Amino acid sequence: MTQFWAEHAWLGADLAEAGVVITVADGKIAAVVKGVMDPPGEAMRLDGLTLPGFANGHSHAFHRLLRGRTHAGSGSFWTWREEMYAAAATLDPDDYHQIGLQVFGEMVAAGYSAVGEFHYLHHGADGTRYENRNIMGDALIAAATAVGIRITLLDTLYLHGGIDESGEFADLDAVQRRFSDGSAESWAERVAGLSEGPTLRIGAAVHSVRAADRTAIEAVATWAREANAPFHAHVSEQPAENTQSQAAFGLSPTQLLAEAGALGTRFTAVHGTHLDDRDIALLGSSSSNVCFCPTTERDLADGIGPGRSLVKAGARLSIGSDSQAIVDPFEEIRAVELNERLATQVRGNHSVHELLTYGTANGYAAIGWPEGGRIEVGALADFTTITLDSFRLEGTAPAHLLASAVFAATASDVTTTVVDGQIVHTD
Amino acid sequence: MTQFWAEHAWLGADLAEAGVVITVADGKIAAVVKGVMDPPGEAMRLDGLTLPGFANGHSHAFHRLLRGRTHAGSGSFWTWREEMYAAAATLDPDDYHQIGLQVFGEMVAAGYSAVGEFHYLHHGADGTRYENRNIMGDALIAAATAVGIRITLLDTLYLHGGIDESGEFADLDAVQRRFSDGSAESWAERVAGLSEGPTLRIGAAVHSVRAADRTAIEAVATWAREANAPFHAHVSEQPAENTQSQAAFGLSPTQLLAEAGALGTRFTAVHGTHLDDRDIALLGSSSSNVCFCPTTERDLADGIGPGRSLVKAGARLSIGSDSQAIVDPFEEIRAVELNERLATQVRGNHSVHELLTYGTANGYAAIGWPEGGRIEVGALADFTTITLDSFRLEGTAPAHLLASAVFAATASDVTTTVVDGQIVHTD
Repeated sequence: MTQFWAEHAWLGADLAEAGVVITVADGKIAAVVKGVMDPPGEAMRLDGLTLPGFANGHSHAFHRLLRGRTHAGSGSFWTWREEMYAAAATLDPDDYHQIGLQVFGEMVAAGYSAVGEFHYLHHGADGTRYENRNIMGDALIAAATAVGIRITLLDTLYLHGGIDESGEFADLDAVQRRFSDGSAESWAERVAGLSEGPTLRIGAAVHSVRAADRTAIEAVATWAREANAPFHAHVSEQPAENTQSQAAFGLSPTQLLAEAGALGTRFTAVHGTHLDDRDIALLGSSSSNVCFCPTTERDLADGIGPGRSLVKAGARLSIGSDSQAIVDPFEEIRAVELNERLATQVRGNHSVHELLTYGTANGYAAIGWPEGGRIEVGALADFTTITLDSFRLEGTAPAHLLASAVFAATASDVTTTVVDGQIVHTD
Repeated sequence: MTQFWAEHAWLGADLAEAGVVITVADGKIAAVVKGVMDPPGEAMRLDGLTLPGFANGHSHAFHRLLRGRTHAGSGSFWTWREEMYAAAATLDPDDYHQIGLQVFGEMVAAGYSAVGEFHYLHHGADGTRYENRNIMGDALIAAATAVGIRITLLDTLYLHGGIDESGEFADLDAVQRRFSDGSAESWAERVAGLSEGPTLRIGAAVHSVRAADRTAIEAVATWAREANAPFHAHVSEQPAENTQSQAAFGLSPTQLLAEAGALGTRFTAVHGTHLDDRDIALLGSSSSNVCFCPTTERDLADGIGPGRSLVKAGARLSIGSDSQAIVDPFEEIRAVELNERLATQVRGNHSVHELLTYGTANGYAAIGWPEGGRIEVGALADFTTITLDSFRLEGTAPAHLLASAVFAATASDVTTTVVDGQIVHTD
């Protein structure tokens, strides 16, 4: 049993509570008592505001290599992708581990306590299989374990090199060969070699409808259903993807995924920037998750997704750092609201309570930990604390703590992050 | 004579230089020598990347009071304004000084070395004149002096309470009475009581075309021309302002300001979010400045201004923290580009060199210090240094330092800020 005393903590209500003792046993929250103004002597003291840990619902760890290298670029998403592929072409398992250590370290220091790693760099640089066919995924898992962040490895199926103008799948190019298992069956066989742990889950992904045919998507959806595992896919990040999907299937990406049996509470559409009304209705009525990556969607000139419409339809929003240009959950959650203000010229599309939920409980559920992302008895003992002494938050009245955290805090205000009851970051 | 040794410094080229000795005398840069890899013993060592200090081209210091109080709000710019007025109604000179100390302190810690303070809280809460009619402006100047930030007090004319549907000026409401001098002549008489200093300039502003009639705008434009002083106005922040301007004058705000003789290199249009092609041509052909406040324009759901079109037409962009929800020059300069990416779905609208210039030299010029915002002989000795050891920037190759600073650094990476040759912030 470990005890923490939080000066202020968000327990899910509209206001933060003062003086909260959180008792942890076996990685779970065993007791929560509020109104304790004198910290118990044995408790670890958390000055400031304690929040449930944030879930990074969509990460490509290796994109950290690109920070500052591509962000000033011109052109489109598609020219950016060429530079990203150049980075992907060079990595061996040790590089992949090192970059994981760096970026997962940055995540826990920023207040993320869990990450969904959308992993598709499976094989050698020319597509040759490693002797341990999961050596790349294992490298990231080992990095997450070393850092202490909770991880869901979203092991990704990638079979085709896009869709050409006639609606046919294109062959894989040289870099993409290392992404492909050759078939959904071979993907499943490899994934069967991965095992789970107290802070490790295995989930499924298809890269996108540009990279997997309908039969393969159906196979992965079936795998995820049988494993009761999360299932993610990039969906409608760019208008060109919608055009290609129509050319190949006569359906939008979301419609295709719906027909393939992918949608539902375990499914996450990543981005969902260019959805039409029918897509929104499908994602909403199935209670699917949609993971916005607002700082990346700014960087890649993707556009602004229909956040409010999705929530109204019944979808659950979450957030991801995706390209790692920015690793800051506060910046992501406020950007969900602020981007939508820019698009609609209306304020208050998402409440503070909602934005915090997108970053925490919704994200945890989307990556397969529905028992996480909240500070309550029985929940995972994952939380993060921000100081109220920085220039950004000093002088904040208790009534405005949550709004100030959402709209003014940054990653650098994080002082402590706890995962599975263990302190994994402290300054 | 004081010497600084910068590990890396941006001297205006496309790449940062390594090992730069900056010699300062009388608040000016007396010498710049690059390629000095061993720091001279007497030099103050600046590890990391040194940039010219950032200019905060548009600040309302007292809005710091609103942080976390209004940012979660719903409704529009206009309902937000009611909450801002409630804060404005309560402040006395001592409060105004205290809030200045707090927010100017935050600015120098964030890398801003100069601020243009758009100041219109001139009189007592009910409009009664203070015995010292400049006591409120003096309170801010004293705060800036105490903190060490360079300040241009943009003393603002505010006469009318908006424009009604018939195009008539409305009476001032209760809160607005403290903003008004009653006439442009009375404004000029009061402003004549303010004097300048080595780190203090006095400039002019009209709040907006909603708050000043054409004759009054002409009078302030004449004052600014004769004083060779900067002249600022809020311009087309909201569509309703354009509608009101058309109703009152049959002109857009920019057209009215052009006819009143306001435009030119000393003029700054603040926001410029909703400009039409004719407005852009007028601002561009007159080499006017346009101060974007991107984090505020997100917060207030103003929209995204036509940055690239303005630059192409010949206008000079700068940045401001405006509402103080965020005080971070890195976030503002990258948001100029990232917001435009969201609006256009195209990357690379503004180069790294341009974005740095908007934040530094352009901003200094816009608030009346054309000799500032660059590290070169004869320039003002104002600069700021960011560490390269944070999670955000560690491992950055020299070739990518500037892009990394623009797209990944935050205010919390600032380690040192120098104004007028003096260190005003160091961690």
